[in-house]
Amino acid sequence: MEIQPIAWFESPFPTKFGIPRQSGLVPDLTGRIVFEPEYRQMEAVRGLEAFDYLWIIWEFSANRDAEKSLTVRPPRLGGNQRMGVFATRSPFRPNNLGLSCVRIDRIEHDAKLGPVIYVKGADLMHHTPIYDIKPYVAYADAHPEARSGFVDNTEWEPLKVELPKELENKIPTDQVASLIATLQQDPRPRYHNDPNRIYGMPFLTFDIRFKVADNVLTVVEIK
Amino acid sequence: MEIQPIAWFESPFPTKFGIPRQSGLVPDLTGRIVFEPEYRQMEAVRGLEAFDYLWIIWEFSANRDAEKSLTVRPPRLGGNQRMGVFATRSPFRPNNLGLSCVRIDRIEHDAKLGPVIYVKGADLMHHTPIYDIKPYVAYADAHPEARSGFVDNTEWEPLKVELPKELENKIPTDQVASLIATLQQDPRPRYHNDPNRIYGMPFLTFDIRFKVADNVLTVVEIK
Repeated sequence: MEIQPIAWFESPFPTKFGIPRQSGLVPDLTGRIVFEPEYRQMEAVRGLEAFDYLWIIWEFSANRDAEKSLTVRPPRLGGNQRMGVFATRSPFRPNNLGLSCVRIDRIEHDAKLGPVIYVKGADLMHHTPIYDIKPYVAYADAHPEARSGFVDNTEWEPLKVELPKELENKIPTDQVASLIATLQQDPRPRYHNDPNRIYGMPFLTFDIRFKVADNVLTVVEIK
Repeated sequence: MEIQPIAWFESPFPTKFGIPRQSGLVPDLTGRIVFEPEYRQMEAVRGLEAFDYLWIIWEFSANRDAEKSLTVRPPRLGGNQRMGVFATRSPFRPNNLGLSCVRIDRIEHDAKLGPVIYVKGADLMHHTPIYDIKPYVAYADAHPEARSGFVDNTEWEPLKVELPKELENKIPTDQVASLIATLQQDPRPRYHNDPNRIYGMPFLTFDIRFKVADNVLTVVEIK
């Protein structure tokens, strides 16, 4: 079937590199949902302010032409074990559909854009097309006791992040915490392990350059 | 964007009438997911058996030609209050996309169909097209404390169901509990209130005929 974007996501991540690998992992990460013109009326979201969380159904738009396979190698498993694509949330999947649970921070009325939903904890790239949003209904959606397969069994330690003060000063103050929390998640593709390699992560309009050795990520340059 | 079904749902509900209004409401309701030929290999679901729940992204296929509006009237609010379509899970929504969390009962290998996923608690009609399935990951998806808007504030009392023994005997024994639990949810369109009106709900190959008076639903005939 043919589906049309109802909205677009705006986030500090201009590319998919560095985006947290699941929603909620970096709770302070702020983004916003801007509707397509035909939904730019406050009545389209009437009642939403009384919910804490939102589901977003969106497109892994950067993977449109990516090759697909019935199995994938989850980064949580070190990238060397294959799981069925339908047993993972891998971004490489038949219909490129993503699903994220984000916290509603606030809903603002913009004279031009209509309702703008500010959310926290999103794992969406800037300018991601959104196909639906639905309120999170705890009685149907919350299963805190659920077994979660390989995700339960993998120990995972956030990286320690060293961000020298003179580099930190280049970043808007209200974005520093999200940047650090994102880096703690280890943005490297799968488990690279070359301590001398320098990676560049686009964040807002910056290029954050860093290296990783012994579970310490050091930011070496911000351009 | 164009999306293609990866699977189809098989359920006791041949039409949308009577389907529980959210996943999990009738936990014993059993259905199954049958893949399209290109995904009929066990490796496509490898690892899924270690998860308890599954997300299904599907199509409200019976509403393809339904009229859409920016606001809807949730049955939980008695059908007389309008909410924004994006503040509800209404089946009348721009891209007809449905989202359900179901419990994985078991995964079987069928010589012809490949992996077949048996699930419980689904709110999908028979032969619903499915566009993606993803495992439920508790750390990202479970927010039991989440405020859930109008859903939190509406008292809702299940109906008492009277199913005479001679009618019950017409239904396969293993389906009786789901039928009763479904009827308790009040399958009537919004809040009809004519105690003499007889409704017919298709269930499996049967037509379940019932009426409702004073919060008691009485099954009067099963054809």
